[in-house]
Amino acid sequence: MPHYAYLNGRYVSHDRACVHIEDRGFQFADGVYEVIACIDGRLADERGHIDRMRRSLKELKMPMPMKRENFHDAIVRLLKKNRLRNASVYIQVTRGVYKRDFPFPPKGVKQTVVITARPFDFKNNEKVKVGIKVVTVPDLRWKRRDIKTTGLIAQVLAKQAAVVKGAYEAWLVDERGFVTEGSSSNAWIVTKKGSIVTRKATSDILRGVTRTALQKVCKDLGLKIEERAFTVGEAQQAQECFTSSAVALIMPVVSVDGKKIGGGKPGPVAQKLYASYMDYVMKGKQVSWKA
Amino acid sequence: MPHYAYLNGRYVSHDRACVHIEDRGFQFADGVYEVIACIDGRLADERGHIDRMRRSLKELKMPMPMKRENFHDAIVRLLKKNRLRNASVYIQVTRGVYKRDFPFPPKGVKQTVVITARPFDFKNNEKVKVGIKVVTVPDLRWKRRDIKTTGLIAQVLAKQAAVVKGAYEAWLVDERGFVTEGSSSNAWIVTKKGSIVTRKATSDILRGVTRTALQKVCKDLGLKIEERAFTVGEAQQAQECFTSSAVALIMPVVSVDGKKIGGGKPGPVAQKLYASYMDYVMKGKQVSWKA
Repeated sequence: MPHYAYLNGRYVSHDRACVHIEDRGFQFADGVYEVIACIDGRLADERGHIDRMRRSLKELKMPMPMKRENFHDAIVRLLKKNRLRNASVYIQVTRGVYKRDFPFPPKGVKQTVVITARPFDFKNNEKVKVGIKVVTVPDLRWKRRDIKTTGLIAQVLAKQAAVVKGAYEAWLVDERGFVTEGSSSNAWIVTKKGSIVTRKATSDILRGVTRTALQKVCKDLGLKIEERAFTVGEAQQAQECFTSSAVALIMPVVSVDGKKIGGGKPGPVAQKLYASYMDYVMKGKQVSWKA
Repeated sequence: MPHYAYLNGRYVSHDRACVHIEDRGFQFADGVYEVIACIDGRLADERGHIDRMRRSLKELKMPMPMKRENFHDAIVRLLKKNRLRNASVYIQVTRGVYKRDFPFPPKGVKQTVVITARPFDFKNNEKVKVGIKVVTVPDLRWKRRDIKTTGLIAQVLAKQAAVVKGAYEAWLVDERGFVTEGSSSNAWIVTKKGSIVTRKATSDILRGVTRTALQKVCKDLGLKIEERAFTVGEAQQAQECFTSSAVALIMPVVSVDGKKIGGGKPGPVAQKLYASYMDYVMKGKQVSWKA
């Protein structure tokens, strides 16, 4: 089966989808991205993701390259062409192609829009069942982590440091010893007293769309969230730890820097939130379609 | 005349030189770059630039994709094909193309190597004669500025902030009020007492190859350099300010945040250093060739 990608209005063979070497995404990381889960034909929090993309673009002084509806149509058409109902959808928008120079190119240069879709088996994600290991590394990133740019080298190095140590995710730690977030997820703990804690969304972290959805889910379940920073030590003493992200969804953490959490098994709060989040996606007013 | 680019061992039409949308340079800024001036057929400090590229790659845990001699041959062949003896040569190396995921791809994935060359008229750079205006902005970059990655969005925003204010360069200022460096250059001042000052090369700044060359040039001229941080206020009170970089070379600064420096005209030290740097390139053991 051919695998298609969306590239500037066309549906092209994924293998041959290319951008120019002077695309500002390639030379300057001058662009933003989003990842959306398509679960059983439902685009989870599509609106939230497109809203955040619009905000990221605005912070970089770029307009939306097309309307929300056009993004929706392009995503759905791409999924249909690839016969996918369970997929990770990746969107990237850059400032376009122009002769290399740091300042913005002149008006009229067309932004680059790329969308890809990859199969993802949400129902049989083994990691949700057994939990993941987390290591901590210093947070080396720039000061505007609220913007979802493709300038991800610090995250790449952090994730690789985790993989080398047999872990799946790296939690990034600020200069005062507090966890900011994961390299590609938000970080959560459940304290011994049963409080659900996650860091406040300032420019120190990315305001996760799944994080926002989980806040709603918790509210519906009558669970209260404390928005505050926590240290690595507090995480290691917690009853549970977990992560939230668009495709891995809610992932129970069973160890932090080698210290077992909750006896080394996924905890009940993370499992409950995972199930409730799935309900939220399946029953919510999400877009659905037939492949 | 066709314009060629080097792309993974081939010399292709610049207009059609493309990389895959899943190149890690495009999706993660997972790569490094260098810019080398070719002045009258001499590659200025080619060895220093290739050495720094090797170091940047090493810090990102990547090998050199090919030997120094192969880079040299590729650059010279590209310049010859483009009939250029005065050019800005751009080299970019990424971790290659692989299905999108944060950790490094498996061994065996081929790195991407791009080289481009653009004409640059070093002899008639009007900005050297009239000087440039500088504005200051907070330094938002990550903590490893010693690695020359393509994660340049903070630099792009800084440079654009300068352009919007009618300036040419932005000097980045750390949290304590000290200048780190320019968005694409190192920052220098000449104090009222005649001291030449530039910031020490730690992970706070990029160790400029032209900066290192200028240190040698100053030594030969019997001028002493103080390696220390300076504030915006100190720069505004300085006798002279200037920048150093691979292509703009030594650029006199005639104002900082609107405050005129040295009466608003290029100062004698910057002009002397420009001439001496040119001598260093032309008389030094630089590679030369006929177009």
